[in-house]
Amino acid sequence: MPVLDLSVSAVDLTRTICDIPSVSDDETPLADAIEAAVRQLPHLSVHRDGDTIVARTDLGRAQRVVIAGHIDTVPINGNVPTRDIEIEGEPYVWGRGTVDMKAGVAVQLVLAAALAEPRVDITWMWYDHEEVDAARNGLTRLAAARPDLFAADFAILGEPSNGQVEGGCNGTLRAIVRTDGVRAHSARAWVGENAIHKAAPVLVRLAEYRPREIEVDGLVYREGLNAVGISGGIAGNVIPDACEVEVNFRFAPSRSGEQAEQHVRDVFEGFDVEIVDLSPGARPGLDAPLAQEFVASVGAEPRPKYGWTDVARFSAMGVPAVNYGPGDPQLAHHDEERVPVAQIEDVERGLRAWLT
Amino acid sequence: MPVLDLSVSAVDLTRTICDIPSVSDDETPLADAIEAAVRQLPHLSVHRDGDTIVARTDLGRAQRVVIAGHIDTVPINGNVPTRDIEIEGEPYVWGRGTVDMKAGVAVQLVLAAALAEPRVDITWMWYDHEEVDAARNGLTRLAAARPDLFAADFAILGEPSNGQVEGGCNGTLRAIVRTDGVRAHSARAWVGENAIHKAAPVLVRLAEYRPREIEVDGLVYREGLNAVGISGGIAGNVIPDACEVEVNFRFAPSRSGEQAEQHVRDVFEGFDVEIVDLSPGARPGLDAPLAQEFVASVGAEPRPKYGWTDVARFSAMGVPAVNYGPGDPQLAHHDEERVPVAQIEDVERGLRAWLT
Repeated sequence: MPVLDLSVSAVDLTRTICDIPSVSDDETPLADAIEAAVRQLPHLSVHRDGDTIVARTDLGRAQRVVIAGHIDTVPINGNVPTRDIEIEGEPYVWGRGTVDMKAGVAVQLVLAAALAEPRVDITWMWYDHEEVDAARNGLTRLAAARPDLFAADFAILGEPSNGQVEGGCNGTLRAIVRTDGVRAHSARAWVGENAIHKAAPVLVRLAEYRPREIEVDGLVYREGLNAVGISGGIAGNVIPDACEVEVNFRFAPSRSGEQAEQHVRDVFEGFDVEIVDLSPGARPGLDAPLAQEFVASVGAEPRPKYGWTDVARFSAMGVPAVNYGPGDPQLAHHDEERVPVAQIEDVERGLRAWLT
Repeated sequence: MPVLDLSVSAVDLTRTICDIPSVSDDETPLADAIEAAVRQLPHLSVHRDGDTIVARTDLGRAQRVVIAGHIDTVPINGNVPTRDIEIEGEPYVWGRGTVDMKAGVAVQLVLAAALAEPRVDITWMWYDHEEVDAARNGLTRLAAARPDLFAADFAILGEPSNGQVEGGCNGTLRAIVRTDGVRAHSARAWVGENAIHKAAPVLVRLAEYRPREIEVDGLVYREGLNAVGISGGIAGNVIPDACEVEVNFRFAPSRSGEQAEQHVRDVFEGFDVEIVDLSPGARPGLDAPLAQEFVASVGAEPRPKYGWTDVARFSAMGVPAVNYGPGDPQLAHHDEERVPVAQIEDVERGLRAWLT
């Protein structure tokens, strides 16, 4: 089993844990190493559930903060082990997981070891299976088994946010918009009814759709409604009797799931719409006193998070939550995934200052 | 080997040869039976190529007519053996192949046996693999091996035409109309460019397209431009960077293949268009003296043929050709395929009268 030294810098620890592959389903070696390292720390009580490790201080502070990060990555594509690279004079750690999100986890592990007496109680969570179906997410499992561990006044996820504070997240909905017709031989098309032609207004409405920018608790969320798939057709000489357009609506956290569904049904009025997936977003939660303190302390300008992250899970459980981590989210899952060394150090400094 | 008695009625022979299954690739038993039967006829010289049988009179007549029919069918779907049924008091032979096109073949076989001294020389052709790729069609093979056998002044295909004369046929062209875009995560759609949305004008142009009706040599051909397939999409959270619409253009025989291609390129101007399949149509050929005689003799009203048939092959070889056979083309390939007994008798009577 690899041994983790949590007394090194967060940058060094980023390299070390990126070089322990932990693609979803293969998190156990890294989870074992994390568990062994944090069990050495007398100020933390440790709970393990599958490959999720929870480590808590119990100092009787007035407030408690959850600080969490997932330890799995998307599949490796020739980008492990990590390399030190420079871009325009700036040093980076390059490789799978550096952005999403082992640099964030490394910062958390270093601080978990260093901060024996933080000014708030902390529940550290390092969890498995974030990059796959939500049903398999380590936090889904833990929330079912031990909801008490989620009790907190505020939560910080170390998802990449370029070292800024990203509040809440957009919701996401997927739906199938269907048209039907009447099958016929294409030599006598007038006998049939072309379902693909009938989908023209669906694509026109999508092409003409102007997504809104919606301010929620002071942050502006940008929505989006997009076709992510289309299919139809039987054979090269048959008028098709069915066409399906799969659409994805990313919606501001001020809309409930029901409102998002209604909006999509309104856009495609006159068409058969089936909702196949729906995850509401999370309001930024920046009006919570701890959140305001946190933002002021790290000196960051809060921004909206567009992608869905586990902050929505905390938000749904009544815990205001933000994303705060090193790395550019646009490079997550990218083969050239890389994190600026300076961002790792900035985030470590920011968190450390606020927690002490 | 089943033995064919060509002295029975064309209706009886229709039942017999429909009950000898001959789905494309399995024509040999029927081809063997036909070859054996026509080799008994002293007035015919017989040539066999694969499962295609050619039987010719050589009476030194001034003119020669090809009369042809394919012996394969589309797959059987619980509709063999044949049954005698009645619809609104009218008797039908029901079953796979009755329409497309064994009733027509039965008429031809009966007449091939009966007419030892027709007033024109006749080249009878019964061929394989018409219901599959054109490259595998028995006539494609025969035309390469023995083009001399196609020499004629006129050709009649026994394809179902409701006992009417259908002149020529529409051409057919298939093309792929492509759009491209830029892939991106759907949470940040504005970073990408949605190729499915960009296909909206393609579907709008198809939906708004008004097909023309074009008179060619006195017959009105109805054209059609249809999407027969559409595909695009990578995953439920990715803005797609490609979309393909497959279109099928059925065009009047007055347009050349090049003109048809140009028309499709004009309709989809501004888009990437790839032609993937192109078979020009055939002019009706009803201005040929033999054709005029034939139409007058069978007393039919000439109509246009919409579907592509092997008449186009003869037309391309300089032989005017028409379709003339029992059965409703709309019931071809249908599980309830059935031919009115009266149409078999009418077509037999019509052909016999003209040939003697």
